[in-house]
Amino acid sequence: MCVPGCMEAVRAGLSRRGFFGRAGAAAAGFAATAVTPVPAPAATLAPRSFERMIDLTHTLGPQFPTFFDTPGIEFETRAEYAKDGYNMYVWKLLEHAGTHIDAPIHFAAKGASVDQIAADTLVVPLAVVDVVERADNDPDYLLSRDDLVAWEAKHGRLPRGCCVAMHAGFGRIAVSDPARFIGRDVDGTLHFPGIAPEAAAWLLNDREVAGLAVDTLSLDNGPSTEFGTHKLWLTAGRWGLENVANLDQAPPTGATLVVGVPKVKDATGAPVRLFAFV
Amino acid sequence: MCVPGCMEAVRAGLSRRGFFGRAGAAAAGFAATAVTPVPAPAATLAPRSFERMIDLTHTLGPQFPTFFDTPGIEFETRAEYAKDGYNMYVWKLLEHAGTHIDAPIHFAAKGASVDQIAADTLVVPLAVVDVVERADNDPDYLLSRDDLVAWEAKHGRLPRGCCVAMHAGFGRIAVSDPARFIGRDVDGTLHFPGIAPEAAAWLLNDREVAGLAVDTLSLDNGPSTEFGTHKLWLTAGRWGLENVANLDQAPPTGATLVVGVPKVKDATGAPVRLFAFV
Repeated sequence: MCVPGCMEAVRAGLSRRGFFGRAGAAAAGFAATAVTPVPAPAATLAPRSFERMIDLTHTLGPQFPTFFDTPGIEFETRAEYAKDGYNMYVWKLLEHAGTHIDAPIHFAAKGASVDQIAADTLVVPLAVVDVVERADNDPDYLLSRDDLVAWEAKHGRLPRGCCVAMHAGFGRIAVSDPARFIGRDVDGTLHFPGIAPEAAAWLLNDREVAGLAVDTLSLDNGPSTEFGTHKLWLTAGRWGLENVANLDQAPPTGATLVVGVPKVKDATGAPVRLFAFV
Repeated sequence: MCVPGCMEAVRAGLSRRGFFGRAGAAAAGFAATAVTPVPAPAATLAPRSFERMIDLTHTLGPQFPTFFDTPGIEFETRAEYAKDGYNMYVWKLLEHAGTHIDAPIHFAAKGASVDQIAADTLVVPLAVVDVVERADNDPDYLLSRDDLVAWEAKHGRLPRGCCVAMHAGFGRIAVSDPARFIGRDVDGTLHFPGIAPEAAAWLLNDREVAGLAVDTLSLDNGPSTEFGTHKLWLTAGRWGLENVANLDQAPPTGATLVVGVPKVKDATGAPVRLFAFV
């Protein structure tokens, strides 16, 4: 597989230039900062081969924890094998449930919906930042700019057009310990790690990153009421991934992430299949 | 990227052996035929690189044609930016709408649901069989065993563990001419091409194929009331893809298909993102 940037423009998608062009305009309106355009990552990476695949996706059912304290999905039976000769459901689906994508329009007055995210920004280098130990000591831990600088000191500059994933160790407890995964306290405040807005701003302004990912319920940490990272990142035309699974199996760098998101018109988010190829 | 078979077993998925083992058992019950087990395709294919990506996915909205004459998706607004500071919908989704997967359980009393399809059978070699000219002359055209034999005469034996895709030219008209795409006549009978059950049976018994794909509404052709290909193929534990887009851009052989299907528990089908890497 070639790295993303050397892929041809996809017929039905938006061009990278168009996508990030709008992103910059939107971000300028929100944060009054200049956003570095994201060039094609191919310029710095040669074609490469892959030898194994990691499924970064949780199974989504009615029991999977959600941010909203309601089931993420419910089923209505439309056909049954015994009666109709086949089985079929209709889903009532909260589009931000399970392992899912946040499209720019999720936190912006205007912005790309799921179907408008450029296809070639959905196949990107994956950078995994391990904050497990810090998150074990602080359930509200915010991944910081220092964490990113430390990652670069070990692994080199973040690849152009990559997805930066926070690995807080929460993928392990999403199913086994949903109460801890959500972290709701007696006052109703949630507690789980997220990405600091200042870290997101640094990535937006000083690096060339297509997406953020977290293994928790939200890009912002549990207690956040401002949703600063959501606002900054999505308003800038980038996408986010939440409830990512199995990041403990992914290398810090070198994998390619494929974001398998159904191309649903106008959607602000959608459940996804995430494969990392190593 | 390595070809699928050399990928490590994915933690949360079923093993290929387990998947096709159940498939064989189910098929034996239905068709009283022995089904050839499908070995890992890696045995015959070396690691390879890819240089471009083709998006084989239609955009799914309420207007996209469905088999059932009802909208495939409808939206309920859960949050609005102007009022709530963010946008969010709940989808009412027919799980067999748009470019989607049929899981084995769709046409079987027992069988794998979407979440139970082994992850490593979702990244497979793609074989595209062009029947556009025949479909132009016969809207009910059935891809035949002869078509498959002719494909092999040109391109060699179908790769182990591949997806066989029927390219009937219907991807071009799904959006531009939905009435012709559905082909409903005055009596209510539908007209569009599909795959003949005898061709599916040959693939099941004499080749080692993971999935079937069509650029029409159904694996069976429009007038079918028996759904012979659905029953044979899905009961054998294989998956199917319907409403595939842009097959005119895919080569007859040499591409790798990634089936990005959300991992929804118990689902009989699901909208997917399909990427072909060439």
